[in-house]
Amino acid sequence: MFQTFAVSSSPEQGPPRLAALRGALAEAGLHGFLVPRADVHQGEYVAPRDARLEWLTGFTGSAGFCAVLENIAGVFIDGRYRVQVRSQVADTFTPVHWPEVQLADWLLDHLPDGGIVGFDPWLHTVDELASLTRKLRDSKIVLRPVDNMIDPLWSDQPAAPTAPFTAHPLELSGEAHDAKRTGLAADLKAACTVITLPDSIAWLLNIRGTDIERNPVPHAFAILHDDARVTLFAGQGKADAIADHLGPMVTVAAQDSFAAHLGKLTGTVQIDPKSCPAAVATILTKAGATISHASDPCVLPKATKNATEIAGAKAAQHRDAVAMVQFLAWLDAEAPKGHLTEIDVVQKLEGFRTATNALRDISFETISGAGPNAAIVHYRVTDDTNRAVNAGELLLVDSGGQYRDGTTDITRTISIGQPTDEHRACYTRVLRGMVAISRLRFPKGLSGQHIDAFARAPLWEAGLDYDHGTGHGIGSYLSVHEGPQGISRRATTPFVPGMIVSNEPGYYREGAFGIRIENLIAVVEAPAIAGGDSRDMLAFETLTYVPLDRRLIETDQLTRAERDWIDRYHATTLAVLAQDLHGDALDWLQQACAPLT
Amino acid sequence: MFQTFAVSSSPEQGPPRLAALRGALAEAGLHGFLVPRADVHQGEYVAPRDARLEWLTGFTGSAGFCAVLENIAGVFIDGRYRVQVRSQVADTFTPVHWPEVQLADWLLDHLPDGGIVGFDPWLHTVDELASLTRKLRDSKIVLRPVDNMIDPLWSDQPAAPTAPFTAHPLELSGEAHDAKRTGLAADLKAACTVITLPDSIAWLLNIRGTDIERNPVPHAFAILHDDARVTLFAGQGKADAIADHLGPMVTVAAQDSFAAHLGKLTGTVQIDPKSCPAAVATILTKAGATISHASDPCVLPKATKNATEIAGAKAAQHRDAVAMVQFLAWLDAEAPKGHLTEIDVVQKLEGFRTATNALRDISFETISGAGPNAAIVHYRVTDDTNRAVNAGELLLVDSGGQYRDGTTDITRTISIGQPTDEHRACYTRVLRGMVAISRLRFPKGLSGQHIDAFARAPLWEAGLDYDHGTGHGIGSYLSVHEGPQGISRRATTPFVPGMIVSNEPGYYREGAFGIRIENLIAVVEAPAIAGGDSRDMLAFETLTYVPLDRRLIETDQLTRAERDWIDRYHATTLAVLAQDLHGDALDWLQQACAPLT
Repeated sequence: MFQTFAVSSSPEQGPPRLAALRGALAEAGLHGFLVPRADVHQGEYVAPRDARLEWLTGFTGSAGFCAVLENIAGVFIDGRYRVQVRSQVADTFTPVHWPEVQLADWLLDHLPDGGIVGFDPWLHTVDELASLTRKLRDSKIVLRPVDNMIDPLWSDQPAAPTAPFTAHPLELSGEAHDAKRTGLAADLKAACTVITLPDSIAWLLNIRGTDIERNPVPHAFAILHDDARVTLFAGQGKADAIADHLGPMVTVAAQDSFAAHLGKLTGTVQIDPKSCPAAVATILTKAGATISHASDPCVLPKATKNATEIAGAKAAQHRDAVAMVQFLAWLDAEAPKGHLTEIDVVQKLEGFRTATNALRDISFETISGAGPNAAIVHYRVTDDTNRAVNAGELLLVDSGGQYRDGTTDITRTISIGQPTDEHRACYTRVLRGMVAISRLRFPKGLSGQHIDAFARAPLWEAGLDYDHGTGHGIGSYLSVHEGPQGISRRATTPFVPGMIVSNEPGYYREGAFGIRIENLIAVVEAPAIAGGDSRDMLAFETLTYVPLDRRLIETDQLTRAERDWIDRYHATTLAVLAQDLHGDALDWLQQACAPLT
Repeated sequence: MFQTFAVSSSPEQGPPRLAALRGALAEAGLHGFLVPRADVHQGEYVAPRDARLEWLTGFTGSAGFCAVLENIAGVFIDGRYRVQVRSQVADTFTPVHWPEVQLADWLLDHLPDGGIVGFDPWLHTVDELASLTRKLRDSKIVLRPVDNMIDPLWSDQPAAPTAPFTAHPLELSGEAHDAKRTGLAADLKAACTVITLPDSIAWLLNIRGTDIERNPVPHAFAILHDDARVTLFAGQGKADAIADHLGPMVTVAAQDSFAAHLGKLTGTVQIDPKSCPAAVATILTKAGATISHASDPCVLPKATKNATEIAGAKAAQHRDAVAMVQFLAWLDAEAPKGHLTEIDVVQKLEGFRTATNALRDISFETISGAGPNAAIVHYRVTDDTNRAVNAGELLLVDSGGQYRDGTTDITRTISIGQPTDEHRACYTRVLRGMVAISRLRFPKGLSGQHIDAFARAPLWEAGLDYDHGTGHGIGSYLSVHEGPQGISRRATTPFVPGMIVSNEPGYYREGAFGIRIENLIAVVEAPAIAGGDSRDMLAFETLTYVPLDRRLIETDQLTRAERDWIDRYHATTLAVLAQDLHGDALDWLQQACAPLT
């Protein structure tokens, strides 16, 4: 099993650790210290040794930070974590509603004039520090870069991961790293660019790692030079086995020599201020290099999957769909008996995925929420929260797998026994939004912000909505959340053929139920239409084929076009999956894919 | 009649005028001069004395400029005017596709190093000049502010308009100018702000003018001080009759003393760089004032109509709708006889509006396009282009009136005789887009860019689209095109209750036909919905009630919701208009408003 259910937080350890930190601050002449969730790579997951925020406070959420001052320690958390934080941190810590309360304002409220706040410049980005510095410019508060203050106190801090990197072969990547390096170098408007995002390095050099859970990225740094050479900074021995794969144009250096190398760079050095650690900019400036700001050049080509990657995604989706259908058939047979819990659901589903013999990891902690738990958007079941899957309730299951040919992410909401009229009405509206995005044909140049409303309009009609984006990019055996494209009010990167996004509208009624339906879709050139004008248009190709719960669909609330789409979707699902299923699962599939009545 | 049809352009006068201008440039030691369409107020219409671009080149379009160099004179025009410009300017001028070709690049291509380009700093905005300066920074080209070079050559240049301003009474404005001035002054983060947009001044002081056609704005400047005093710079005697209305807090000064007044301002002076002439910034800088950039503070409150203005808009729409129905009834009776032309249509429609006894002006030149002429989005019929209104073709009529209580803008597309299947298919798609926007309910915080796609999706489905925005703001007895809100991919100002926008999707098949359907709609708080969550939502209230051509609607292509909306729309139209019509027009209305079959 990849997923675990133990309650990892130990609030009682926070206060002594906080006291120790405050002692260290006093010795160092500091009045405060910032403890972010982020590691140096700014990813969504961190390795155990980098879980400093959790070690200090007990808080396990995927975003947030702690600002420790002499008399107050604020744990800054966003709307997703306001309930969770209360059960995970001791009273010694003060939860702060972020981003409503900004760190700069909070520091101004709680620090005396002349207060000195230390921070580890490797754990804060250039943009983040610039913003904080700007807001404190007219104040008497001093920000001081210091060595990390947590690590010396953390006596049993785990070691850095040491497992070797692996090559991601051409038959899965579709483009050799030589071509990728050469292409990016040709467009580079600098002598070199520093790359600190692990999935960018993974894409650029066609390598993968096991340094963190869920996302197969290598923890490393890289410098891409304008002659297409790359220096890869990796932990001791981690790149030894892929020396042939890397070839003569990629030089491997020790990870702890990164700073020294940066200190020797001259000329124009490009960094991405949104992800580059502030320390990198400081070192470059001291070295006399000219810093130029630009987006990490790997981000857009990584998001734009080539034909091989799209083929891999489809194969992974197909494999994953077979497991999902086995799971859904099992669920329909077992759940009515009334003995299942949310954890049973997670374990069984992971079991079906594992049985594919291709699963490398789950792509994130499965969200298995029954009844009111499904209304908690970022719910993760633990032994403490585990709830029975009861008849008459909805079960929301959001899950995915990491396969070498692709990363999957799918959400289905299932009626356990008979749904209520309200369940059906809301599910049908969410489904209509999902279908609207799936069916859309639109001109080139549009981005997610221009189409997000289609996913929501059926809910808006009824005075409903949901408080998350409709879709995110997804990696190719990489991160399950990947930029820069997306479907939300804030998604401004134009769609390009090859981009994969999730399409996952939802609806959540607090204390009652939650609904989300998620398929992955790929941006494609729209086929020409008879009678259409010669306009360049795009469309979405659906990658995920797994039945939707017909018990939850109010057919008479659908337009003809919506109903046709759903019937075609189910017909295709049956056609592509039937050959890989048999027995009860095949019977279930045939029933589940019948036309709507 | 307000509208005229004479062909105003005289291409043969361009070459001698150009030669005279080049002579003057040589004498002044200049290698070029910029002649914009804009006047000092940057409005859509200019007074005859400010039509310098037309005087020099013959080009009468509403946007563009001429860059006159020693050996080439480029007339920069956008996509709307590429056909028109060829018939209006002599070969001595070179049409340039703008904005594809940028002025800076064109100057670099055509001027020698050290070339000096003169410009009148009153006719270019701060932003416009800053952008041009930035692009030429690394070149050897010099931009030099000079007195206008056209005016001395234009021997019969008309005088500035002299008609007096009038007060816009409280029963129409809904808010006294004292309250407006006081409110804006309280929020002002400067000692004063310079206002150069005529409709801003009109709104702020509740005055109107007749200085240009179509838009009842006063040509004036104003300085609003932080104590709510205003200095109004107006032409001789133009403000005499409204002295009581203006009261003691508004000081009237001579228009030609504006520059001298600016030269005495100190402290922080706020200007809007998007509309403020570059000359104003230069004078302020010389005076030692600190310039701060911010949007014209009148723009947003002017766009957000109060209850009185909304009531006025509804009254104006109602009056205008009666005239439109009389016109449509007449058209249906007369057009099949086969003797009408586009000009007849314009004249008859203006006649019905004039008969209301409330029409102050048409709000723009009526677009009356028959058959292929309707595919020219900015078509304006002249004696040269006048076309018969033929059976079997579509007639597109886009028109509006200026009434003291409101400005109207409406487009209807009418089938003359029997439509083709293609006419009906395309009309139905355009209509579905118009209905989608009308029906929309959406959360607060959204802007036009987030909803524009709803107006287009039915067209996109068939591979079609249109190359203009879906909607623009509209004034309250002011400009027919008003910012900042709109419905388009580029509209980023969030909707606020009280804003009025047009809702006018279209479809154009070059050489064949054109379709546009336009209603005005007002942003309102969405009423609560039973079963809805407590979310703040907005909706649109339709202001325009005039029948849609039922002959062009393919009922079986509509969803039930679309069909219901159209039937309700027609039922309301009949209910609100029947009392004001009689005889043939009432009969026509009753037929036109019957439910779809």
